[in-house]
Amino acid sequence: MNLEEARKKLDGFQKKFFAYRHVLSLLSYDGKTAAPAGTAENRAQTISVLSEDIHRASTSEETKELLEYLDGEKDSLTEKEKRAVGLLMKDIKKLSRIPRDEFISYRELLIRSDSIWHRAKENSEFASFCPTLEKVFEMTRRLALYVEPDLDPYDYQLSENEEGLDRATADAFFAELREKIVPLLKEIKKAPQVDDGLRHGYFPAERQKELSVYLMDLIGLDRDHVGLSTTEHPFTTTLGSHFDTRITTHYYEDDFACSAFSVIHEGGHALYETGSDDDLAFTVLDGGVSMGIHESQSRFYENIIGRSRAFCSLIFPKLREIFPDEMKGKTDKDLYLAVNKVAPSLIRTEADEVTYCLHIMVRYELEKAVMDGDLRVSDLPGEWNRLYREYLGIDVPNDKVGVLQDTHWADGLIGYFPSYALGSAYGAHFLKKMKETVDVEKCLERGDLSPINEWNREKIWRHGVLYTPAQMLERVLDEKFDPGVFTDYLTEKYSGIYGI
Amino acid sequence: MNLEEARKKLDGFQKKFFAYRHVLSLLSYDGKTAAPAGTAENRAQTISVLSEDIHRASTSEETKELLEYLDGEKDSLTEKEKRAVGLLMKDIKKLSRIPRDEFISYRELLIRSDSIWHRAKENSEFASFCPTLEKVFEMTRRLALYVEPDLDPYDYQLSENEEGLDRATADAFFAELREKIVPLLKEIKKAPQVDDGLRHGYFPAERQKELSVYLMDLIGLDRDHVGLSTTEHPFTTTLGSHFDTRITTHYYEDDFACSAFSVIHEGGHALYETGSDDDLAFTVLDGGVSMGIHESQSRFYENIIGRSRAFCSLIFPKLREIFPDEMKGKTDKDLYLAVNKVAPSLIRTEADEVTYCLHIMVRYELEKAVMDGDLRVSDLPGEWNRLYREYLGIDVPNDKVGVLQDTHWADGLIGYFPSYALGSAYGAHFLKKMKETVDVEKCLERGDLSPINEWNREKIWRHGVLYTPAQMLERVLDEKFDPGVFTDYLTEKYSGIYGI
Repeated sequence: MNLEEARKKLDGFQKKFFAYRHVLSLLSYDGKTAAPAGTAENRAQTISVLSEDIHRASTSEETKELLEYLDGEKDSLTEKEKRAVGLLMKDIKKLSRIPRDEFISYRELLIRSDSIWHRAKENSEFASFCPTLEKVFEMTRRLALYVEPDLDPYDYQLSENEEGLDRATADAFFAELREKIVPLLKEIKKAPQVDDGLRHGYFPAERQKELSVYLMDLIGLDRDHVGLSTTEHPFTTTLGSHFDTRITTHYYEDDFACSAFSVIHEGGHALYETGSDDDLAFTVLDGGVSMGIHESQSRFYENIIGRSRAFCSLIFPKLREIFPDEMKGKTDKDLYLAVNKVAPSLIRTEADEVTYCLHIMVRYELEKAVMDGDLRVSDLPGEWNRLYREYLGIDVPNDKVGVLQDTHWADGLIGYFPSYALGSAYGAHFLKKMKETVDVEKCLERGDLSPINEWNREKIWRHGVLYTPAQMLERVLDEKFDPGVFTDYLTEKYSGIYGI
Repeated sequence: MNLEEARKKLDGFQKKFFAYRHVLSLLSYDGKTAAPAGTAENRAQTISVLSEDIHRASTSEETKELLEYLDGEKDSLTEKEKRAVGLLMKDIKKLSRIPRDEFISYRELLIRSDSIWHRAKENSEFASFCPTLEKVFEMTRRLALYVEPDLDPYDYQLSENEEGLDRATADAFFAELREKIVPLLKEIKKAPQVDDGLRHGYFPAERQKELSVYLMDLIGLDRDHVGLSTTEHPFTTTLGSHFDTRITTHYYEDDFACSAFSVIHEGGHALYETGSDDDLAFTVLDGGVSMGIHESQSRFYENIIGRSRAFCSLIFPKLREIFPDEMKGKTDKDLYLAVNKVAPSLIRTEADEVTYCLHIMVRYELEKAVMDGDLRVSDLPGEWNRLYREYLGIDVPNDKVGVLQDTHWADGLIGYFPSYALGSAYGAHFLKKMKETVDVEKCLERGDLSPINEWNREKIWRHGVLYTPAQMLERVLDEKFDPGVFTDYLTEKYSGIYGI
């Protein structure tokens, strides 16, 4: 094998790998958007066959030899090739350590699990999901130990979602947030409350869809390559390459803001995914580098941009056009206040920016405890409810709006939740940096987000997975990432709103 | 290898084959329902990889040996196994004769072609689709000659859609229809015309969706295993096994009947697909045996059931409930007349039962001529328009409602159209036979279609692909299939409606 041949083989292997990833993602996307309720077993059958093929191809001697050869030729490789080879070797080492039948069972389990969770949530019945969720946690732990026998399984899960993250770092991060957010929340509670009446009323799904399309265009998504569907629990997925990304939403006809900000949130993910340089397509460098950086983009667009005063003024005329009756007598200021009302609530995805991280901390504590064997899955609902009382001061009336609300655990996404809080904090620090060269407010007043997007594209999106999250932060910030920038942002914004 | 091992291998091979078929169908389904407009190339990339894998696995020495071994053990196989081995050998012989790169190019071409057709139709611009359609015809011809060098390529295409069909049989069949339909149509034209005002008005898509769900339930579809989506040109597809079938529709807000009868039509396909015995799942015997038999079911439910007097009376109260304003002052009789108005028109899928076969004949003549090299693809629009004038007496104003209206050729479905006419005729003969033991009209009056469905299930659906179309007709009819039964059915029904 010479370098030329190896490069060609690497290209072929990656194309094959991404074709499989395309159809595996598509099977999951279909299951969550269009598939009838009784078809999960049928998908599991197909997943099983494909998982075997992907495991076999990835762990073949041929693949290993190819990567080892390329690793040996490191000095002749470009920076991109070096990183790709490193990432693939890591992936393949991981796959090689997981017995093929375990890998297949795990993939099958997740397809079934999503479907069982879906019905359990519909019926608000944790018991019917509990045995499956036990299996998900059990297999997650087992697989983590196959791959890194010497690492704590929850630390392994954290690092899978955010390279370099461990529980010590996460604990310290959350402690710092808690120290600032809890007193801020107390102050807000004492102040006169804001009115969010504007978001409630009757907003037909069809017209909310119109709003979704408007928002997608406004934030700069290319609808030729970004699709919109509906689902139970909104998510974003990329199919094969960054040329095809799908966002999803859920329309509640009594509150337009749920879907609107969900669309902007998922839109942030999609901007990041579709923003990779085109030459990264069909390589392991395509897409987002970590869930934390990913959530920095989604929560940046949803909150820092989307819930800003200027953005509310920008979109208000459109809202009035689409919902003339419901917006009668309201102003853009009313919109700003309504979508920034701070109040401890049940549902994470609808939480305000201040209480949001408390929702995350509940999940972080719980998944950590289950992974550590300190909490039984069957005790999750009780503990969930207890922590909501402790952290947010509210009672959870049922599991549908409690422990069953999120799809993540059903999808095997354990160790993912901290990314949302990390991402929120990254985003605030990015904003500070961005403001050094971009007049963000003026962009929003003008209704032209392109300078904002270009900054993100240049600094973050276009590089895909080329840099590690830590390298990325360093490159973007040019200083140490500081969670205090986020709490300062919150304090300043909400002091203004609540006059404290 | 012993028989036990061979059976196990056959099972594994079929499971793999159906996993691939699942994802290939899903890629196509996604492209036609949810995918953004600019993503066809991305799907083509994945299709290319998977097609190579499927071709390689199907034509491997191991597979050939397995099938030859089983073929040699024919006497020890069950009837189902024998048929499965025969069908697989035929499929694999076919694949083996097509060079792998040609097979891959063809699959890629069809993904692109669908997307290009879609835009061309939107813009009513045949020229932008013409070069692609030329390639589709050219590759269809070339592939046919690879597989059966001694067979006329169009005859090969006909037999692919309906085992045993050739142009001589099709010519004779169409001649017989023409002989009866043309004079009937003349009589109808002379009679006082019926009013179809009831179908026109304003019917919001959301409410039409409600009607779709009602109709799906009414005809007996299991919505846990049959999904409903929207698309440009309605179709039905099965994903992996008969446990997951999708129908699609297109809502026109000025005419509810287009979608309603489309849902019943696709619902007929889905009843057939999902009606296979469960032990046929993940084997080559699952699903429908031929496109003619398939269309016999779709057009049976759409027309013979759906456009019958009794069915119109059955569904009218629901129509009035969903569209109270538009149905004010109308009766079930008005509905019956409106959906059976005979009038030469531009769009095949919306044509009445009498003129429908003339639409098919236009397509049959044209695709035959192109396949024979007697007509250039670039001359299709002109010839299309000329034949619409000759057969239906109407002028085609543009290609969108002319040669670009159907998705079939873009999808490589050449030789498919005759199935619609054959199916219509099969269905009428099936009805005659069914009436010997089932009181069809009473079932519809009662709103209980299960005796009708059970008859179809027992005679047709449950057997999947076990019998050839000819065997199936013989088993169901117990006499020679007679197209005259269809023309008699038309004559009787429309004489009643038009008082002739």
